[in-house]
Amino acid sequence: MSEIRQNLVTKDWVIIATERAKRPEDFKKKNSVSPQLPKFEKNCPFCPGNEKDMSPEETLRVDKNGKWQVRIIPNKYPALSRTEERIRTVDGIKRKITGAGIHEVVIETPLHNTTTALLPKEDVESIIKSYKIRYNEMLKDERVEMIIIFKNHGEAAGTSLVHSHSQIVATPVVPAQVRERFHDAQQYFDENLECVFCKILAEELKDGKRIVLETDGFVSFIPYAALSPFHMWIYPKRHTSSFGEISNNEMEDLAEHLRIVLLKYYRGLDNPDFNYVIRSAPTGLKNIEFFHWYLSIVPRITKTAGFELGSGMFINTSLPENDAEFLRNVKMDL
Amino acid sequence: MSEIRQNLVTKDWVIIATERAKRPEDFKKKNSVSPQLPKFEKNCPFCPGNEKDMSPEETLRVDKNGKWQVRIIPNKYPALSRTEERIRTVDGIKRKITGAGIHEVVIETPLHNTTTALLPKEDVESIIKSYKIRYNEMLKDERVEMIIIFKNHGEAAGTSLVHSHSQIVATPVVPAQVRERFHDAQQYFDENLECVFCKILAEELKDGKRIVLETDGFVSFIPYAALSPFHMWIYPKRHTSSFGEISNNEMEDLAEHLRIVLLKYYRGLDNPDFNYVIRSAPTGLKNIEFFHWYLSIVPRITKTAGFELGSGMFINTSLPENDAEFLRNVKMDL
Repeated sequence: MSEIRQNLVTKDWVIIATERAKRPEDFKKKNSVSPQLPKFEKNCPFCPGNEKDMSPEETLRVDKNGKWQVRIIPNKYPALSRTEERIRTVDGIKRKITGAGIHEVVIETPLHNTTTALLPKEDVESIIKSYKIRYNEMLKDERVEMIIIFKNHGEAAGTSLVHSHSQIVATPVVPAQVRERFHDAQQYFDENLECVFCKILAEELKDGKRIVLETDGFVSFIPYAALSPFHMWIYPKRHTSSFGEISNNEMEDLAEHLRIVLLKYYRGLDNPDFNYVIRSAPTGLKNIEFFHWYLSIVPRITKTAGFELGSGMFINTSLPENDAEFLRNVKMDL
Repeated sequence: MSEIRQNLVTKDWVIIATERAKRPEDFKKKNSVSPQLPKFEKNCPFCPGNEKDMSPEETLRVDKNGKWQVRIIPNKYPALSRTEERIRTVDGIKRKITGAGIHEVVIETPLHNTTTALLPKEDVESIIKSYKIRYNEMLKDERVEMIIIFKNHGEAAGTSLVHSHSQIVATPVVPAQVRERFHDAQQYFDENLECVFCKILAEELKDGKRIVLETDGFVSFIPYAALSPFHMWIYPKRHTSSFGEISNNEMEDLAEHLRIVLLKYYRGLDNPDFNYVIRSAPTGLKNIEFFHWYLSIVPRITKTAGFELGSGMFINTSLPENDAEFLRNVKMDL
């Protein structure tokens, strides 16, 4: 028998249809990003040697042993313009804003054939530190209302370039969905005098069944109403509403935590396509007691269909408790 | 330069990034559903001859020349249970409802190798009439709060069976997204004393640039803030909040209208994968003046990535006005 669970943060109702359950093995699939590729590819705009000819000038660079380890560059085909003025207009049913904002690419490693899960901890830490620097720099841009840091890994996750990278987009408006969730979180706080994220974290730790990994500063778990198989949330234990406030200790801990979790996917589900995204408060709001930043990972191993498009409800064929147990048990020794 | 448009119904902000625009030809792709298949496939549960052995007993059947033309059957692997009692429980952060509801499959034609776009008008009319009968029957089930009628065409749209079919799911809860949109539509009515859908329809007809097809009872257009390339809305001209209230004349008109629109996709974009969904009011509400049922078509020719997952905002690489012009110009003579 299926059951319908509500996600307290997104308010989504998710049909957990266990009769249709697959085994984790059934999700395994050949992936386009693979260590079988060459370490260097001469036509790849992210490979060393092509910095000047094939990519715009960098906005940040982290070196290691005299060479770059992480580079952040403006997106060559940006969705939003760094120089455009932000102008909002309304003309009857036509409401619009100029495409003002920032769109950057984080090249996560000089190697063409690797991925975050396989990097040493200190390289993952360099990526996270780079995120923070650019995040806080973009905060100063008065046109910016929201900063979204995300990664697309593999074709099903929407990327066309295999060289490991993530993206940062700073938008001139707070997305409607974010505004809704913010409103709901505020209402929860009003009624319960606590942050809904802190509450979920405490309950999940007490229950334990959906926990994948706990380290000093972070907890990974499969949400009670996960939207799709192996959908995961990584929550910082310390309450802060903005990713820009992450501390040095937390960055070090998150680097190792994220690396382990991604390696569990890599090994357990055979390098699945996935997206991750850092969900942080809109930039105009500081130290919000009712909102908590977090990182969300969505393996792209199932497809959304007309039902999801037409209702906003999801059908998850995996039981969150089983997914968490599976990932907990992925062997992590070398 | 890109611009960001707001969809008045969904409240979504969509980045229209024309610098990244593709030509319609670039979206063309080999499709799994094709007339090159055999008319009959012995292992297909929807093909004639397999009614008893491979599929559950039908809940509706429309005959033509002594044979069935449309059959509706319970889904063999239902997401929701027809017999389950609806029980809602709350236990701390765990909110759930039993998986009570109805999940049916509409087999749209006895032929294994065809699709809605290629059916004669009267067969499309039989499909729509079958939808209406089952919709109004499901309305009587007191466990049901929402009925979603949808079609998944092709692998990218989430279907595994090629034989042309659609689905009806009756859920025991109003999805959060639907509730939000309802609330917004009500607020628009409060402030403007008119239905936001009627307003959009009037403005789109006046403007004309995004219209694809107008018939006696229906108008197809690419929304001003379409979420993805060739995303289309089909609005009934007559204001009614529930699909269950569609008239005989409207069904006849919609059959021809939908057939033409789907044929435009089929020919213009080379049989793309797509979803369509009928968006109707929650079942507990009758004759709502601020809500208007409609049909939404989403070709699955691009992929959503981390940005969309992480913000609820979309990047559309097509200009809605160009998409509408392209579809208007697809030749319809035989």
